[in-house]
Amino acid sequence: MAELIDQLFLGKLGNPVLDQRDDSGVFQIGNSYVAFTTDSFVVDPLFFPGGDIGRLAVFGTVNDLACAAATPLYITSSFILEEGLDMATLEAVVDSMRAAADEAGVTVAAGDTKVVPNGAADRMFITTAGIGLLRTDSGRPYLVSGSLARPGDAVLLSGTLADHGMAVMSRREGLAFESEIVSDAAPISGLVAAVLDACPSVHALRDPTRGGLASALNEIARQSGVCMEVEESAIPVGEPARAACELLGIDPLYVANEGKVVAIIAPEGADAALEAMRSHPLGRQAVRIGKVLESPAGRVHLITPYGNRRILVLAHGEPLPRIC
Amino acid sequence: MAELIDQLFLGKLGNPVLDQRDDSGVFQIGNSYVAFTTDSFVVDPLFFPGGDIGRLAVFGTVNDLACAAATPLYITSSFILEEGLDMATLEAVVDSMRAAADEAGVTVAAGDTKVVPNGAADRMFITTAGIGLLRTDSGRPYLVSGSLARPGDAVLLSGTLADHGMAVMSRREGLAFESEIVSDAAPISGLVAAVLDACPSVHALRDPTRGGLASALNEIARQSGVCMEVEESAIPVGEPARAACELLGIDPLYVANEGKVVAIIAPEGADAALEAMRSHPLGRQAVRIGKVLESPAGRVHLITPYGNRRILVLAHGEPLPRIC
Repeated sequence: MAELIDQLFLGKLGNPVLDQRDDSGVFQIGNSYVAFTTDSFVVDPLFFPGGDIGRLAVFGTVNDLACAAATPLYITSSFILEEGLDMATLEAVVDSMRAAADEAGVTVAAGDTKVVPNGAADRMFITTAGIGLLRTDSGRPYLVSGSLARPGDAVLLSGTLADHGMAVMSRREGLAFESEIVSDAAPISGLVAAVLDACPSVHALRDPTRGGLASALNEIARQSGVCMEVEESAIPVGEPARAACELLGIDPLYVANEGKVVAIIAPEGADAALEAMRSHPLGRQAVRIGKVLESPAGRVHLITPYGNRRILVLAHGEPLPRIC
Repeated sequence: MAELIDQLFLGKLGNPVLDQRDDSGVFQIGNSYVAFTTDSFVVDPLFFPGGDIGRLAVFGTVNDLACAAATPLYITSSFILEEGLDMATLEAVVDSMRAAADEAGVTVAAGDTKVVPNGAADRMFITTAGIGLLRTDSGRPYLVSGSLARPGDAVLLSGTLADHGMAVMSRREGLAFESEIVSDAAPISGLVAAVLDACPSVHALRDPTRGGLASALNEIARQSGVCMEVEESAIPVGEPARAACELLGIDPLYVANEGKVVAIIAPEGADAALEAMRSHPLGRQAVRIGKVLESPAGRVHLITPYGNRRILVLAHGEPLPRIC
């Protein structure tokens, strides 16, 4: 359904900005290049190890801006609340949003609240939007886009996969593991800035949220008309998340993250970018996971530990509902 | 509850931009002054005479930008959909958003969709955010704010009240009146631009949406620390909306509009502003409804047709749920 809807929106609302198909729209205002994005958050439960809906709502938008190579500046937050929601719950979420906004260095510029009758919404939904400023060099913006991946580019990943999605799933399903799975929810803007500072040849950035790494790579492959080839054995997954994925029969490559970035970088810049990632607290486990090939265009290939090649398809439907 | 929540958000998320307490936050990006706003829409029913949730979602954000004296440029739209929603309904809403965006001259820069299980949301909620550009004169922005009303200012209203709210209520309650009540949903940015072109001394603008004219005036009175005095007999209400209000026992001054503006203007500019309004198709019924007094600060006084003075209080609670 989600893909159908995306097609519907792109078809009917399409314009040169939206047609870029990146998470943020990028355009010029005066002499500045601005990125603008939005996301709704419907995560269930509202609180989970490592985060809550408020923290997620701030970082989700901040991270989309970061993936446009923009410095996040201002966000808005709009709440849809179910009548009768416990005020202490709301206060805790708003406190968390404030802390998250401070952590990410963004200012809440505007907000709205709608209260709907009991039963018309499930407790609390939050929609954030955000704007950020692109860096420029002699007036020209440092543009990155899922459409700019080129054959030969290196594919970097900033750390372990599946922690966010499995933290939410485990809490929702009441599963207990030996080690608690903690969401990776974090603002990646500082990490991305470090990579951009170190490397003038970043082509594409994507935070692998809904649909996980597999979806992020598929999107870039389609936008750029290239093939992405990644090595399964190179992709880090933490032990607790791996155990949970195995138990539930879920592929960690399809699970949402909220503090990671995939970077597609010209080969000559890849080492510097990887070093910059590893020097940042959020990128210590960064690895090179693959490379961009010319064909088959629009495909993602996974090289298994046994040397086999399999196609990593775009997720159909919502494998894990209400994860973000 | 809504006021309690506003206090909570202002208290916890407060910063110099948000503390202005206008519907849009205003700040500088490069040499440009930008307004940024958001609103969620939960209207029930989704379609009503004169509009639908999509049209409302576009104009609601466009009109908030216009009330910051900003030219609306880009919007985002984020959908929360209940699983099983009829695809034809969604298509009709997205078509309507496209038409509304074109009518208002804004570009949809980004979007998001979340699908929640059946029962977790009532069909469809839309959250829009928008950014607009303030006009400048020799580099200085034309700032308007609910905090800039001054004693002696004139209070103008661009047309009839209560059409939007009563159109939605009538459709929801299945009420039939002699003449159908049609929502006034429209983009007021052109109307506002005409007023700003004609008059350099506009102090405050507010679109009287949720809570109606009474709430808009109360907000300005509080923000500016002044008293607003308005003449009941000067305030236009169309016959169908008036009849519906009488039947349902609702005061039209508290009913939401979505194509009107209240303008607070220095006395020497009021005639030019009123003429500019009346020359615009959306302002033909514009009237001067009152003036700003020094005290009692934070109050709104209504002069009744019998010459009595009564206090127009801020609406407590949500008099009409899910109107916008």
